Amino acid sequence: MSTSLDRLIETTQALLWERGYAGTSPRAIQEQAGVGQGSMYHHFRSKAALAQAAEERSAAELIEEVRQLLDGPGDPLDRVLAYLRLERDILKGCRIGRLAADPEVVADHSLRKPLEDTFAWISTRLTGLLQEAQAGGQLQQGLDPRLLAATVLAVRQGGYVLARAASSTVPYEQAVEGLTALLTARRT
Amino acid sequence: MSTSLDRLIETTQALLWERGYAGTSPRAIQEQAGVGQGSMYHHFRSKAALAQAAEERSAAELIEEVRQLLDGPGDPLDRVLAYLRLERDILKGCRIGRLAADPEVVADHSLRKPLEDTFAWISTRLTGLLQEAQAGGQLQQGLDPRLLAATVLAVRQGGYVLARAASSTVPYEQAVEGLTALLTARRT
Repeated sequence: MSTSLDRLIETTQALLWERGYAGTSPRAIQEQAGVGQGSMYHHFRSKAALAQAAEERSAAELIEEVRQLLDGPGDPLDRVLAYLRLERDILKGCRIGRLAADPEVVADHSLRKPLEDTFAWISTRLTGLLQEAQAGGQLQQGLDPRLLAATVLAVRQGGYVLARAASSTVPYEQAVEGLTALLTARRT
Repeated sequence: MSTSLDRLIETTQALLWERGYAGTSPRAIQEQAGVGQGSMYHHFRSKAALAQAAEERSAAELIEEVRQLLDGPGDPLDRVLAYLRLERDILKGCRIGRLAADPEVVADHSLRKPLEDTFAWISTRLTGLLQEAQAGGQLQQGLDPRLLAATVLAVRQGGYVLARAASSTVPYEQAVEGLTALLTARRT
């Protein structure tokens, strides 16, 4: 039995993922959550405050999912490649990255921060694994792990954009395969 | 002296880039274009029809910009790298790619088609240049130019997402530098 607070946050998570911030109205949240206006504003002073809570929960869930993969078995480079290939619902896009399209999110520090923090966390973890891979001779020397971590993140985020534009998962899969081939080209 | 038709299209191009499809109201278009409701619906039967015209003009402008660069001087791989580094207003994102975040755009074939066609055009041209680069020995053998073309496109699109999330051009630049290092690692 979920509380009205939980239902508000979960509904807002789903609506933000599908429609973004501008496209998510307080009325749609209330209707889908089955929660009245008074109850919503009892829990959250504004749509922005509720959206921030929903973003923070989505970010925590995404980080937990990625953490399990990056801390999993296999050598460091394989774990980076597994992250790159991590299958979610590709045509749905990234629950965090898609919010960067919203001007209101980008302009508001509290709404933007969960996005920045999530990508920074993943980037730091990827950098560490790529450093390990280099030390272990799986990744060629002379490449900067910090830059490659940004490339890995960008290929996933951009892959979602290309897939949605084509209404097909193919461009996403091609972009990931292309980067995988480059990262493993000199594997010893 | 621009016509009301031109002003409608140019205003819609700017609003779609900044706010996306859901965030662009007919009223905002009319106000910013200085064109009345009657005149707008004289030219276009719906917001979707006007948006499609604006998308098609944005796509044509983007393709012309990319064409000049990809047909420009320099060896084939350098032209691909120049495309990757092409500086626009990074924090503004891609005028075409940002629309893939909009569920209404992705769900409507006429609104989605300019996005798909633009990325397909760029991808085909990049694939050709990467094939030339391979034939000329600038790019290592064994890599699939079609996959790498998707990777190049994805790094740009994802770089915009990361930059907007961080409110900084740095993640974009890092992602591009990372891919550049990988593409040139075996340069002969």
